[in-house]
Parts: sequence; C-alpha cells; structure tokens
Amino acid sequence: MDFISLIEKKKQGKAHSKEEICFIVKSLMEEKVYDSQISSWLMAVYFKGLSLEETAYLTEALAASGSTINFGELSSLIVDKHSTGGVGDKVTITLIPLLAAAGVPVAKLADRGLGYAAGTVDKLESIPSLNTNLTTQAIVNQVKNINAVIASQAEELAPADKKLYALRNITATYDSDVLIAASIISKKIASGASNIILDVKYGSGAFMKTPDDAVRLSKLMVEVGKQLNKSVTAVVTSMEEPLGRAIGNSIEVIEAIEFLKGKIEKGDLANLTYYFATTVLMNMDIYDNKDEAERFLRNLVHSGKALEKFRELIIAQGGDTEVIDNYDRFELPAFKIECESKKSGYVQFINAYNIARAAKILGVSGGINEGENKHPLDLSAGIYLNKKSGEYVNKGDVLYTIYSNDDDSTKIAQKYCDEAFSINDTKPCHTNLVYTVIGTKEEEEDV
Amino acid sequence: MDFISLIEKKKQGKAHSKEEICFIVKSLMEEKVYDSQISSWLMAVYFKGLSLEETAYLTEALAASGSTINFGELSSLIVDKHSTGGVGDKVTITLIPLLAAAGVPVAKLADRGLGYAAGTVDKLESIPSLNTNLTTQAIVNQVKNINAVIASQAEELAPADKKLYALRNITATYDSDVLIAASIISKKIASGASNIILDVKYGSGAFMKTPDDAVRLSKLMVEVGKQLNKSVTAVVTSMEEPLGRAIGNSIEVIEAIEFLKGKIEKGDLANLTYYFATTVLMNMDIYDNKDEAERFLRNLVHSGKALEKFRELIIAQGGDTEVIDNYDRFELPAFKIECESKKSGYVQFINAYNIARAAKILGVSGGINEGENKHPLDLSAGIYLNKKSGEYVNKGDVLYTIYSNDDDSTKIAQKYCDEAFSINDTKPCHTNLVYTVIGTKEEEEDV
Repeated sequence: MDFISLIEKKKQGKAHSKEEICFIVKSLMEEKVYDSQISSWLMAVYFKGLSLEETAYLTEALAASGSTINFGELSSLIVDKHSTGGVGDKVTITLIPLLAAAGVPVAKLADRGLGYAAGTVDKLESIPSLNTNLTTQAIVNQVKNINAVIASQAEELAPADKKLYALRNITATYDSDVLIAASIISKKIASGASNIILDVKYGSGAFMKTPDDAVRLSKLMVEVGKQLNKSVTAVVTSMEEPLGRAIGNSIEVIEAIEFLKGKIEKGDLANLTYYFATTVLMNMDIYDNKDEAERFLRNLVHSGKALEKFRELIIAQGGDTEVIDNYDRFELPAFKIECESKKSGYVQFINAYNIARAAKILGVSGGINEGENKHPLDLSAGIYLNKKSGEYVNKGDVLYTIYSNDDDSTKIAQKYCDEAFSINDTKPCHTNLVYTVIGTKEEEEDV
Repeated sequence: MDFISLIEKKKQGKAHSKEEICFIVKSLMEEKVYDSQISSWLMAVYFKGLSLEETAYLTEALAASGSTINFGELSSLIVDKHSTGGVGDKVTITLIPLLAAAGVPVAKLADRGLGYAAGTVDKLESIPSLNTNLTTQAIVNQVKNINAVIASQAEELAPADKKLYALRNITATYDSDVLIAASIISKKIASGASNIILDVKYGSGAFMKTPDDAVRLSKLMVEVGKQLNKSVTAVVTSMEEPLGRAIGNSIEVIEAIEFLKGKIEKGDLANLTYYFATTVLMNMDIYDNKDEAERFLRNLVHSGKALEKFRELIIAQGGDTEVIDNYDRFELPAFKIECESKKSGYVQFINAYNIARAAKILGVSGGINEGENKHPLDLSAGIYLNKKSGEYVNKGDVLYTIYSNDDDSTKIAQKYCDEAFSINDTKPCHTNLVYTVIGTKEEEEDV
C-alpha cells in the first residue's frame, strides 16, 4: 500500500477499506508519511467525504492509536458529555456534579480554551490549586470513589487525533463533518465512555452556523456511535446568544456554583442543565418519566447534594473548597467596570459572536492568536450580563459588567459588547434553546 | 495575509488576486509556509481550479522565482520546444539541429527521464563526454555562436516550480491542468523563450489519455502564453504507439542521427519533425507557404546541413563527434536479443504503454521507482521496433530487438513487448499522428 495511491483514490471519490484507513492512521503515528500527504488527503476528504463505514473505521483507528481508559465493571455505565463549544457554556460544571449526585458515574475528559471559547479545564483551574492533570489510574479511582471526575484530555489518549487535529487547523480542513465526528467520538471512546451525550451548538457563537449543519453533524455522530456499539445522544442547541450570564473562567465557575446552590432555578443555564441530566437518566433507563426525573434532579440541587458532590470533586482533585462559600478566594481582576445601558427597553437579543470577541480580547481563552488576543489566558477576566434577552432595562441601568486587568482591552471589549446588545420597546418572543435531539426516543421540545 | 485563509478561499472556489498568488509563491520560496499547507492548497486547486488570470499570475510568479536567461537582442526570436513526454519521442534531437540550420535560434532546456519516459538530457548524455550542465552565460553564448543548445534545466531557473512539482508528485495533485500549464510555461519563460512550441501528447503512452484532455490543456497553455505576451503553439499528437523505431537513450540518438543523415525520409518521426519545423517557420513568418517551408527543410537534411549543425552542437558541448559515424562509440549493451514474430500478418497496433513498461524495466528511465525498476538508469538499454504498424511480418521474422544488460529484466521486457503487438491479416488504416494544432492559423491535417 502506498500513500500516493490512497490520496488518488480519495481524490476520485472512492471508498477506503478498513485496512487502508488503519494504514493511514498507522503511517501518521509512525511518521511514515509526509504531513503534506496527510494534508492533501484531508483536503480530498473535505471534498469527497467519507462513507459512514469509513468514518467509523477512522474513529476506531484514532481511538486505538494510544492508550485507552478501562473502568472495569463500571465500563458500560460511564457517561461523558461533550459540547462543540459555546460562549458562556458552563453546563459541564453544573451537569457533572448533578449526574454524579444522581448515582451516575461520569468521567469528563475536557479541553482547554481555543479560539473564541473558554475551556472547561481552564475554568476549573481558576479554583486555586485544583489539578486536572490526572493519570489514567487516578481518573478510574476517582470515578469509583465519588462518581465524578473532570480531567484534562491526557496526551496518550487518541494521539493520532491530536496529530490530525493539528494539521486540520493549519490546512483549512477543519470543517469537514466526517473529520469532526471521528475526532470527537474517537476521544470519547479512548476515554472509556459508553454513554456519550453531545451538545451540538449552532449560531453566531458556535462553529456551526445553522441548525441544519448541526443536525447533519449530530446524525453522523449518532450513526458512528451505533457502528461502534456506543450510545450517542446529540442535543442540538442554539448558540445565537451566550449561555447564562457569566462569560469567562472563574466567573463561570461562580455561576455554576450559584446553580448548584439552588440560586438559579430558571433561565437557559438551569433549563439546559436539567434537560441534559434528564436525558441521561432516561437514556440509561433510571427514569422512564421525564417530569419525575426532573423533580428528582431538582431535589438533588435543593437538598445541597449536587453542591456536596462538587465539593467532593474539588477535594479529590486537590482544589481549595473555600471558593464555594467565598468567591473572593478566586483570583480577582484589577478592574470591574459596570457598563450602563444607553437606552430603555427590552433586551431583544445578545449576539454571542460579539460577546465572544470581547471575551477573547480580555484573555478569557488562550490558544491561537488571531491578531486580537493581546495578552495570555487571564482566568479572572470576563463579562457578566446583568440583563439577558427578554429583560427590561432602564437607560442608565447596568447592562453588563467587564472584569479585566488591562485598560486598553477593556475599551475594545466594551465596544464589542455594546454592539452585541439589541434593545427596543417590544417584549421579544421566547425562542427555544433546544432545536432537536437525535439518538433518543424524545424529539424536539420547548426548553 | 495568512495562508490558512488563502486555502479556505480556494476551498470555497473563490479567485485569488495577483498579490495572493505572489504571496503563495513567495511563502513557498522563503519557507514561510508548511508543506502541509501548500499541499492542501494544491488539492483545493485540483478540485476548484484556477481562472485563466490566476493561472497566468502563478506562471509569472513561478518564472520570476529564480534567475532568468536573457538572450539580449535575440530575445524575441528564441524558440523552445517542449513535449509532455512520450515513448520513443526523440523529436527534440531531430528538430533542434534542423531549426538551427534553418537560421532559427533554438535554446532547448530539457529534463531527465522520469517515470516511464526517457529524458532528452539522459539521451544526449549517452554521447560520450557531452555536457548538458551549462551555465546561463554558456547557454546564451552557444545560441549566439551556433543557433542551438540543448541544456539541462538549471537549478536556479523557476526554483518555485521545482518545489511545487516535488510536492505535486507526492500528494496526488499532479494531474491538474492549471498546475501543469503553469509549470510548463513558467520554465519556458524563465529560460528566455519567446516562441514556445508544445507537443501535447495523448494516448496509452502519454500522461493525458484522451485527445479531449490534451486539447483542453493545449488551449489553456496557449491562452496563458497570450496573457504573458509569449507566442505558444500547441500541437496535439497521438502517443498510442511509440514514435519511431528506437526506444531508449543511445539508440534514440542513433535514430535521430539517421534522420539527420537523410536516411529516414518517411514515417512518423520524419513527418512529425518536419511538421514541427514547418510550423515554427510559418509562425515566425519566415515562410508563408507550408510546402515551400517543408522543401527548404528537407533540403537542409539532404544537403547535410542539419547533421553539420548537430555536429557543431556536440562540439560546443564537449561531446565525442565520432559517434556520428561510428555508433559503436556509444556504450554497448551486454545483450542484443532479436525477438521473432510468432505469427504472420500486418502489425495492426503497438501499444505504447506496454513498450514503456518494457523500457522502464530495462532501465531506460531513472526517476521514481514504481516497484518495477530493478536497476538504475542504463543508457545503452532499449528496444528497437523492427516492424511498425502497417508493415507485414512473416512468422519467424525479427519483430523487435531488446538491448539489455540484465537477463531477468530482458525476460520481463520481452513479455511486455509481446503483449504490445497486435498482428492480423488485414492491412490497418493509416491514422493521423497530429490531432490538431492550437495557437496558429493552421488546423488539423493528415500527417
């Protein structure tokens, strides 16, 4: 088998055999192929696609390219949740303790922030001395002990995906459904998950711009999961507006803690957290009635059990649990600028992309410098939305608050935030956050 | 300007500006871009193409990437001829002395053999001590002195094309019309040619398999030439069968010398040589009547002037002119195997691809090892077709002769050659060698 003829084959739109896909991944791992050859193959895949079978072969080969986590007798129960990334999306931090408190073993392997979105690993590391860099054995032990872990994606899990991802990032071959699906699912399989719940976001603040794009990718991931005997459920959700009120690292953890304390019972963050948790309990046949499941879950929050689980997680990972009751123990920003509304009216819409640009320039996410990121990752920086869509604001009221350590960045961020808000006299209609769900018996509903 | 967005642009089928094309070539030359990025761009170009303007920008940028040859006051007259490569194609060696004898300054920058086809540089170097590795100044001086030079493509001419070509070869992006056109024309422009005559071959022994493919590429190259104020004429010719009787290196030079001696007046090699030479004289307005031009040219051969010009070229390039009268001064092969016809009848067809495979295994061309080339370049090896299409052969007559230095290779070559010949009772129709000509007033005709 030679690589040139494999590129030629894909260029002509022909399907690869399982052996060919394995050869491609093996060549990549053993550096027996030039990056230039992998890259032209990636571009041919962009144009000609991969069949479902080819995508499953690729997913499997990427997953098998390094070590894998084995949870032993718990294996069939392990849940992992993945979001394709959104602005203010802290659902991982609210959901994992809640599910763990409900008795579900959750092993969340998370990423750092990249591009515009902050990453769960960065967010958690804003808790002083908390460690996300866990060994495979530590991950397994922690799940066995307390049902929950949030660790950073270890280097040795699906290393071929990391190599491919790095090439896709510099060769404009990122946005291929089949490559995205193989990348996401392979990592989850390598990390030992059997029940994968995906938040596939679309909108101005997401990678996918339209619901159709997100649905197409979701269906593909569910089908790839089926081919590989994994339960995959994809919830397609809107990311036209930021999720919750906090956008940043420590301030998102604080918002998550507020939820776990039972102080945020309504709104998009609470609704989406309960939606995901309910979906998992139903999928795993722990409940067969949605309303009952949700009542059970809300009670776990009200009773303090979910918060207690988060405290256990912080302890297990060496963090400072005092942050839970004293938010001043988080690193504090130099400036806290309350920005006033220039007019009165209902907030119609908050553009997630503009908020993301503001957050990026404040240093909320590290990763690729797109010419706007003036300083490195700043865990204390962020934006708090004092008003959200549907709420009334009077001229002069605080509309949003900027947390920052840099005066110049603050000014630019303020400009982007001002552009993000649409305000006028009529009360806006409520829009659904969940567009549809794929891979479970339930279909679209109003959340 | 960043490279990722340029790949993205081409991926979406958008046109590059001149500045963008220059940036791509500059980045390639200055190694400011990863090979992986160039390669994914190449694959995007394969799928989305380049407009005529983009192709001309690329051609110009590749030509300008290194030094260029300047022939001073002769510049507007300089002729260069290029063939896309065929089996037994020694027309360069017959044409250059003939045109030079006709008073036309010809500077032929030639390649070595690659893949299945032998290269002009390798062929000429079968003349003992002949040097094709000439400096730019030596090339200019030789053309001024004797009107003719055949030199190897210098490293410093169009170096960006060499880099791009190397990547195209390993990334299955070779077969893109626009990339082929830019590559061919850029080298001719860098080497100082103003009048470019192209032999664009199609058929089993050529890179392009159908006349349509060859016509499409030809039209493109003529148009690119126009954009860059160069006269380009493309003659589309059949390469279904080998050209002439000799396939190899030294044995092709011997056949060319026989032509220049006036011993080969008919048949495909003579016809095509006169066709090209006539076309050049007409294009340059030296003659306005085709028949007169051909009479003049035939007289240059009969009078010995064309052969004398070849002798001058050998002298100027330090070769042994005694080869002209004593073919034994060429390196001789160990074996000369005369292979007999297994049946009587007319030769209907000789498949060029099968002959090329036989030649390749004998070591006629160096270059890429496709798993069949058992030994390095062998200048003395080759195949002589004792019978050509349309000729009658009796069972037991010599059909072809193999020149070889290796017994094993000889057996495989013989198998391929046997497969190449179709023989039966009816005399085959004459088929046209020239399919059409593009870029001049004349159109298709019977040669």
